[in-house]
Amino acid sequence: MAAAQERSQSWNQSDEPEDQATVARRIRRLTSHLTPVPPSNGGGTALMAAEGCAGGKKAAAMAVDEAALSVYMRGKHRDIQEKVYEYFKARPDLQTPIEISKDDHRELCLKQLLGLVREAGIRPFRYVVEDPAKYFAVAEAVGGIDISLGIKMGVQYRYLCSNVQGLQTLATFDPMTDEFVIDTPNDGAIKWWIGNAAVHGKFATVFARLILPTHDTKGVTDMGVHAFVVPIRDLKTHGVLPGIEIHDCGHKVGLNGVDNGALRFRSVRIPRDNLLNRFGDVSRDGRYTSSLPTINKRFAATLGELVGGRVGLSYSSVGVLKIAATIAIRYSLLRQQFGPPKQPEISILDYQSQQHKLMPMLASAYAFHFATLHLVDKYSEMKKSHDDELAGDVHALSAGLKAYVTSYTAKSISVCREACGGHGYAAVNRFGSLRNDHDIFQTFEGDNTVLLQQVAGDLLKRYQEKFKGGTLSVTWNYLKVSMNTYLSQPNPVTARWESEDHLRDPQFQLDAFRYRTSRLLQSAAMRLRKHSKTLGSFSAWNRCLNHLLTLAESHIESVILAKFIGAVKSCPDEKSRAALKLVCDLYALDRIWKDIGTYRNVDYVAPNKAKAIHKLVDYLSFQVRNIAKELVNAFDLPDLITRAPIAMKSEAYSQYTQYVGF
Amino acid sequence: MAAAQERSQSWNQSDEPEDQATVARRIRRLTSHLTPVPPSNGGGTALMAAEGCAGGKKAAAMAVDEAALSVYMRGKHRDIQEKVYEYFKARPDLQTPIEISKDDHRELCLKQLLGLVREAGIRPFRYVVEDPAKYFAVAEAVGGIDISLGIKMGVQYRYLCSNVQGLQTLATFDPMTDEFVIDTPNDGAIKWWIGNAAVHGKFATVFARLILPTHDTKGVTDMGVHAFVVPIRDLKTHGVLPGIEIHDCGHKVGLNGVDNGALRFRSVRIPRDNLLNRFGDVSRDGRYTSSLPTINKRFAATLGELVGGRVGLSYSSVGVLKIAATIAIRYSLLRQQFGPPKQPEISILDYQSQQHKLMPMLASAYAFHFATLHLVDKYSEMKKSHDDELAGDVHALSAGLKAYVTSYTAKSISVCREACGGHGYAAVNRFGSLRNDHDIFQTFEGDNTVLLQQVAGDLLKRYQEKFKGGTLSVTWNYLKVSMNTYLSQPNPVTARWESEDHLRDPQFQLDAFRYRTSRLLQSAAMRLRKHSKTLGSFSAWNRCLNHLLTLAESHIESVILAKFIGAVKSCPDEKSRAALKLVCDLYALDRIWKDIGTYRNVDYVAPNKAKAIHKLVDYLSFQVRNIAKELVNAFDLPDLITRAPIAMKSEAYSQYTQYVGF
Repeated sequence: MAAAQERSQSWNQSDEPEDQATVARRIRRLTSHLTPVPPSNGGGTALMAAEGCAGGKKAAAMAVDEAALSVYMRGKHRDIQEKVYEYFKARPDLQTPIEISKDDHRELCLKQLLGLVREAGIRPFRYVVEDPAKYFAVAEAVGGIDISLGIKMGVQYRYLCSNVQGLQTLATFDPMTDEFVIDTPNDGAIKWWIGNAAVHGKFATVFARLILPTHDTKGVTDMGVHAFVVPIRDLKTHGVLPGIEIHDCGHKVGLNGVDNGALRFRSVRIPRDNLLNRFGDVSRDGRYTSSLPTINKRFAATLGELVGGRVGLSYSSVGVLKIAATIAIRYSLLRQQFGPPKQPEISILDYQSQQHKLMPMLASAYAFHFATLHLVDKYSEMKKSHDDELAGDVHALSAGLKAYVTSYTAKSISVCREACGGHGYAAVNRFGSLRNDHDIFQTFEGDNTVLLQQVAGDLLKRYQEKFKGGTLSVTWNYLKVSMNTYLSQPNPVTARWESEDHLRDPQFQLDAFRYRTSRLLQSAAMRLRKHSKTLGSFSAWNRCLNHLLTLAESHIESVILAKFIGAVKSCPDEKSRAALKLVCDLYALDRIWKDIGTYRNVDYVAPNKAKAIHKLVDYLSFQVRNIAKELVNAFDLPDLITRAPIAMKSEAYSQYTQYVGF
Repeated sequence: MAAAQERSQSWNQSDEPEDQATVARRIRRLTSHLTPVPPSNGGGTALMAAEGCAGGKKAAAMAVDEAALSVYMRGKHRDIQEKVYEYFKARPDLQTPIEISKDDHRELCLKQLLGLVREAGIRPFRYVVEDPAKYFAVAEAVGGIDISLGIKMGVQYRYLCSNVQGLQTLATFDPMTDEFVIDTPNDGAIKWWIGNAAVHGKFATVFARLILPTHDTKGVTDMGVHAFVVPIRDLKTHGVLPGIEIHDCGHKVGLNGVDNGALRFRSVRIPRDNLLNRFGDVSRDGRYTSSLPTINKRFAATLGELVGGRVGLSYSSVGVLKIAATIAIRYSLLRQQFGPPKQPEISILDYQSQQHKLMPMLASAYAFHFATLHLVDKYSEMKKSHDDELAGDVHALSAGLKAYVTSYTAKSISVCREACGGHGYAAVNRFGSLRNDHDIFQTFEGDNTVLLQQVAGDLLKRYQEKFKGGTLSVTWNYLKVSMNTYLSQPNPVTARWESEDHLRDPQFQLDAFRYRTSRLLQSAAMRLRKHSKTLGSFSAWNRCLNHLLTLAESHIESVILAKFIGAVKSCPDEKSRAALKLVCDLYALDRIWKDIGTYRNVDYVAPNKAKAIHKLVDYLSFQVRNIAKELVNAFDLPDLITRAPIAMKSEAYSQYTQYVGF
């Protein structure tokens, strides 16, 4: 184990002793690190000199107005987040300790939730209905307190079995008693992993097929999936009610503050009133009424909840990414190791390898921030309008963003841990619990691999519609307006353009992203058509599966970039706009470089241009590093949320060494 | 949370109800899944028909003799591993439970270790000296029981401060009392993260600079770093001894069975005998003797221990990768979801996306297995011969393999968790603890980013020696014999060859790997030379850092591939050889495809060839899938080690549902 120390001591194979003066200098630097230093001074200059600059150009340090940027970044619901923070700041007894047993964590998490609602006056149920954006802001804030709390709050008002359309649970209307009878027909239909079910839940919202008696020979009619409120425990004694079978899913990799259980129903009777009747109702005499004409329409309407879960996970996942990136970047700015001969030690963030790990990640956090804000807006709009086309759009976009963002965040937390070496492994510095708790975001509310297939399926459907002269919804519009352009042969002249101005032109970047998507879409459609003839559609799909997943990711990246470019343009503060433009360029070019093989294979990018992109990614990472402190500060996370001693806004190391005991 | 279930129910957007018959069929399949099914029968045929085959060729199912392959895979020390397994099988009280507090885990881990030594008769200390390969085999086996135990055993006989050469701790000889006085001069020299220090350790092996009195005006001489045994706790009372300051490093992300502490020494006196005097000794009157002439030579000799830690981590990391891959692959074989219309459901491992996640990983586990066995052999040879050149070779190879393998395993454990969906998130299925415990392998005994730089530095040194007419050690030999060939322009004719025979020719694969390394080495040397002139060597190195890390990884991959190809050739059993050849081809071509941009940029591979490689990687993944069961069984991990209910050799699901409670 001693070598965790090796890293911290020999980050760059340094032989230099860390003497008292070094330690003192560090502490001074730490305590002053929030005081802006003019870019022409001290460490700044040394760094510039040491680093030189790409393309022989002079690197001009960028001035960032942290406050202005922060204001632009904050959503309109910052106030309610502050309210959450204030409450938990005043209640240290409600903060989750480093070591806590599963059972204690469950109890604590319940207390946190009750306190939030009863004492802090946060009304998640109300916001869900009245203002989803406000709800998601609360979810992000409480997720920063404890991810378990964010999830527990989310599952309070939902009990989802997400393979909704193929659902087997039955709700049969009994006109004799004016009740529904809920039944789980077999073991395979048992609901696993239901949040709150193992211990705390009094009610479950159950999706089940509504079965009505008919007066024909068939006897009953299946009206499709509806939602029902089913009491599962006695309100007074908290005992499990008759006909309900509950089992504890036990210890999980993370999120142990949430008590997941498996549920089975055996002829459980509930009053007719317990049907959630917004989209369809049953009268006393067993007649069905609905404002929506078909089962599919009604099904689409009930999907709203499912989509809401995905929107929430995307949004909260960005919140987790911000926390992890902030901790790793602050530590990397503070931690000094070695340097050029006879010059002060430099921050480990001055190492190209550390920039490579963390700067594209910071750019991604910004990119995802704007993309998920957009998603929340669209979702809120959809909840109001019930517009079919918008609903389809939001459904695909939420699936794609949830899959893309949660996968990225999961990987990034590990990168952050590694970037902080041994200190990243101390539980108190949070990467362990963030990773373990966030991990399942990739699986629940739809496995990411499944969701990306839904996005691909949606793209293919729209691709076919295009050729039938149909319209494309907003998010997909670029395919309509530009498919023909993108599918012509790449221009051999522009394929060689390599100037920085060209590479940083948003139009070039967007074209490159969309070209790739269009190409992948067209080739996927062709391959599917070909293979379907010999293999049938199931196996043809499977044969093209990796291709389809790449297509879906490529499309989502296009959407994210477009939203980011839009957010840069809309930023009213000039300095913030310049900073965002830099971050956006890094996001775009890093993604292009990561997939350079694809671009080279179709000669969209010539070798000289590929080289120029690579060089520019390194250079932009270096430039973003120079404003990294301001960029993470603009996330505006209070110390209560970052919490890690290595990443406090002040006196980081002295706090940390105090924690360890020296 | 309910959507963890969505994944398990709608893996492929299936609407098909899971009825009793389905469940029963699954259980039948599970209980029989170790009985070989002739490839021309049942599911096999359906799959072949469904999948078709690449390049219009007929896919012939490969027959694998699991036992023969397993015999070839097993090292010569399988017997001692069996002994470890037998002991823990008989002692369920010593198995680490899913939930355990830090303090209890530390105590349990100590009991496990004591039991191993005192009851099972395992003698790790002796093996370290007599037969390192035997020691590493034990370490792998106990790591399977609990990774904490593997590490605790390892740190029992070592206390490393790995920035050894720059070490500040002093051991000053006092001829008056015939003692050494051990001192930590300042806070910066405090040793953190010392395994066993916080609670259990009685002694520490301390690396310190040996200071001898002289009779000149200087007064003392620094003889360089030596190792000393320092008592830190009273043998009887277990109280901390005077002058020793110990602090508990507290909760970690994982490995909480190991009690890490920070140590500080204040004028601690130890007898002269406590100098570990293999490489240098001090006489009663303070004279120094050594069989090795210089400080550097002595330093190189003491490095042996450090190298040993890296060898052990590489080896154990492969062990962890095997466990994770086995669990994920067995589950993916067992778990059935959907399928072509009117045909039986297929295993989720029949989905191309699942093959893409897991088959190159399985191939990597095989590749790393042979590479680390080779490393252990070289290390054992080095310990016997003390040959300088061999020591340098082993030092660089252990650094590179440790960095490369542990990074790969860390990422793979997360991929495995995701591949198993919600079930992968149940703590009982092990991915959580494997990931948390293994995580720090990337940092200790040398941060991976630092170690890769050492490899790059070593390559550059040898590159320069080459031009001075010097010799190259064994591992680097390929650079000598082929540098000129590799650095000529790629042949535009072979760049277009795309036949399967050519792509599966080991010579093509090895040439491609080595070409890349040679090219990266030459260009790194040129860039370093250019930048050093303007930036100085420190900043030039930093400017090229990402390039240098890529170079190091590329070199290690070349070494791994060469060893794998050698292992395929040496396999005496024909069927096993054919299976290994297939796995090796997948390893090689997957790596080339992952870095296709590099190959395309220098036109080493033409677009048609790139496409053929991509297609072949998918096809080989599909073929490896067909022998995946045998390939993981050949790892020969007992159920005691895999442990996860979803991956037991028999009755997996019924066990699992029993665990959950149904």
